[in-house]
Amino acid sequence: MKATVYYAPGDVRVETVPDPTIQYPTDAIVRITHACICGSDLWFYRGEEEWKPGWRTGHEWMGIVEEVGSEVQTVKKGDRVLAPFAFSDGSCEFCNKGLQTSCVRGDFWGATNDGGQAEAIRCPLADGTLVPIPQSVENDDALLTAILPLTDVMSTGHHAAVSAGVKLGSVVAVIGDGAVGLCGVLAAKRLGAERIIILGRHESRLEIARHFGATDEVKSRGDEAIAAVQEMTHGGVTSVLECVGNEAAMTTAIGIARPGGTIGYVGVPHGSGHNFNLSRLFQQNITLRGGVAPARAYIPELLVDTVAGKLDASPVLDLTVNLEGVPDGYRAMDNRETIKVMVRP
Amino acid sequence: MKATVYYAPGDVRVETVPDPTIQYPTDAIVRITHACICGSDLWFYRGEEEWKPGWRTGHEWMGIVEEVGSEVQTVKKGDRVLAPFAFSDGSCEFCNKGLQTSCVRGDFWGATNDGGQAEAIRCPLADGTLVPIPQSVENDDALLTAILPLTDVMSTGHHAAVSAGVKLGSVVAVIGDGAVGLCGVLAAKRLGAERIIILGRHESRLEIARHFGATDEVKSRGDEAIAAVQEMTHGGVTSVLECVGNEAAMTTAIGIARPGGTIGYVGVPHGSGHNFNLSRLFQQNITLRGGVAPARAYIPELLVDTVAGKLDASPVLDLTVNLEGVPDGYRAMDNRETIKVMVRP
Repeated sequence: MKATVYYAPGDVRVETVPDPTIQYPTDAIVRITHACICGSDLWFYRGEEEWKPGWRTGHEWMGIVEEVGSEVQTVKKGDRVLAPFAFSDGSCEFCNKGLQTSCVRGDFWGATNDGGQAEAIRCPLADGTLVPIPQSVENDDALLTAILPLTDVMSTGHHAAVSAGVKLGSVVAVIGDGAVGLCGVLAAKRLGAERIIILGRHESRLEIARHFGATDEVKSRGDEAIAAVQEMTHGGVTSVLECVGNEAAMTTAIGIARPGGTIGYVGVPHGSGHNFNLSRLFQQNITLRGGVAPARAYIPELLVDTVAGKLDASPVLDLTVNLEGVPDGYRAMDNRETIKVMVRP
Repeated sequence: MKATVYYAPGDVRVETVPDPTIQYPTDAIVRITHACICGSDLWFYRGEEEWKPGWRTGHEWMGIVEEVGSEVQTVKKGDRVLAPFAFSDGSCEFCNKGLQTSCVRGDFWGATNDGGQAEAIRCPLADGTLVPIPQSVENDDALLTAILPLTDVMSTGHHAAVSAGVKLGSVVAVIGDGAVGLCGVLAAKRLGAERIIILGRHESRLEIARHFGATDEVKSRGDEAIAAVQEMTHGGVTSVLECVGNEAAMTTAIGIARPGGTIGYVGVPHGSGHNFNLSRLFQQNITLRGGVAPARAYIPELLVDTVAGKLDASPVLDLTVNLEGVPDGYRAMDNRETIKVMVRP
């Protein structure tokens, strides 16, 4: 089969690799119908994360089960399924707490595991990982596309909102107008936020933010952005969603949080722990909560709303490529020509 | 009257200063009967915090009301009262949320405000700040001494435990065997913790920790301490109380927190934001919560238990001096000859 393989910064290739096979009785083989390129894929693509040549790529995918191991009970051949960006056994202490990303037997797709930017994938721990998609969705392309973001960005945006304590009537700020930030806006709206301030500067993205529920926009950065949010909210927001992961974004998050407020952070830390202004957090009792989203815990709930037509993050998927187009998709995302790329193998 | 005045690192003096007088109708004048020297006073005493010559010292005190302004309603002349280490109006957004340390009109004792290491003090915003002590306690010296730590260290230890989410059956680690860490042990025990691991190395302090409810001790530091706690808890503790405030303590806190757990931090940050390992917090969804303790919110509840004989943090007060002895008290604490000094003006 064909799969995307990392070679070097700026160099991913679609190559023929061995077909995946069942290796453990808890495995499933899934033929991939939809996948994505993630903003976090750009970390290795830009050489900001150490990756090894030959590693597989892609952690957001859905597809049709082709084969299951002898112990798999919850899915069968022919089922359409989606997967969170990490696999998990569904039975350990952390899975039981809804923290599947800390599963003692789990791991993330790609690297030394199979990746989702491919024709097929071996899914370990299928029972704990895969979520079946209702048969009713089968021929609804738009709905399938709306489900795809649950594999990562929509679940991650939801994690930011949940971690930041967003509830009915909340005043919220979302830092970042990337796919996760936009999904954070949508998640905050869904949880009942009354006012949602998006901090971003790309008009096409802000348009989606407005569509998702943003009520205010701050296009400045740094101290200027902090001052703007402080002024428009008379002292900061109770819930900040930090959806970037660098030092500037975290500094802004700390600066715009209201005393006693909470920062829900989901941007993969790349320097966001540097020059960390713990003093303001301390003086104002601002909580820092979040991390890698336990998407598996959120997917069932978000899937219900998506199938019901009440949740649709697919506008963040503004470019579609086939498998051969994956390298071009990386380039387009790296050059910020697109928010997020959908792959249809 | 006499009051303690800061001159330079290592140099505080007890001097004659003008008697305090009512300046606003919301003021009260309180004759101080009990005060403390705080571990956080050592920051300026050691020159690690920039202080100006002439600033007053002492933020932990209780006493007898001598005079009140025309608008004061909740206390009157002759009442015995205690104060949290910050004053607050009791009516703003943050006071109403129980976050009196962020009061829009509040501030901390000492520096340009009157200090508690003195014969008397002008207390602004008396209604929002002072808590009356029941008349029944009046002649009970031991009970008055048990109440004194509520002004700061006991409330701060409680804030660490509350912030860390300690509840019935919790497995807890407390970093630091200073007065706040020891109070954190006591607070965790009071909230129902089942296992309380104290990280400290001074036998006399560990003895108090055991008396307060610590079940386990780790005397090593750094990576060795992290490995020890990880091993004895099979993967870390759900609640960490960080009661020191430097980089090493925060690094240890992050290292011993269980995935999905919470660090309640109350050590005044002096470098604890440096080399901040946000990656582990992120990967394991560990929450960082806490800050300067809103003691005013906790005192009523803790006072009830103290008066009832169910809560007594006074063993941390292991040296008593009179007002003239305050400079010696600073030296003794700076040299770690004593845990915490009580001042009886």
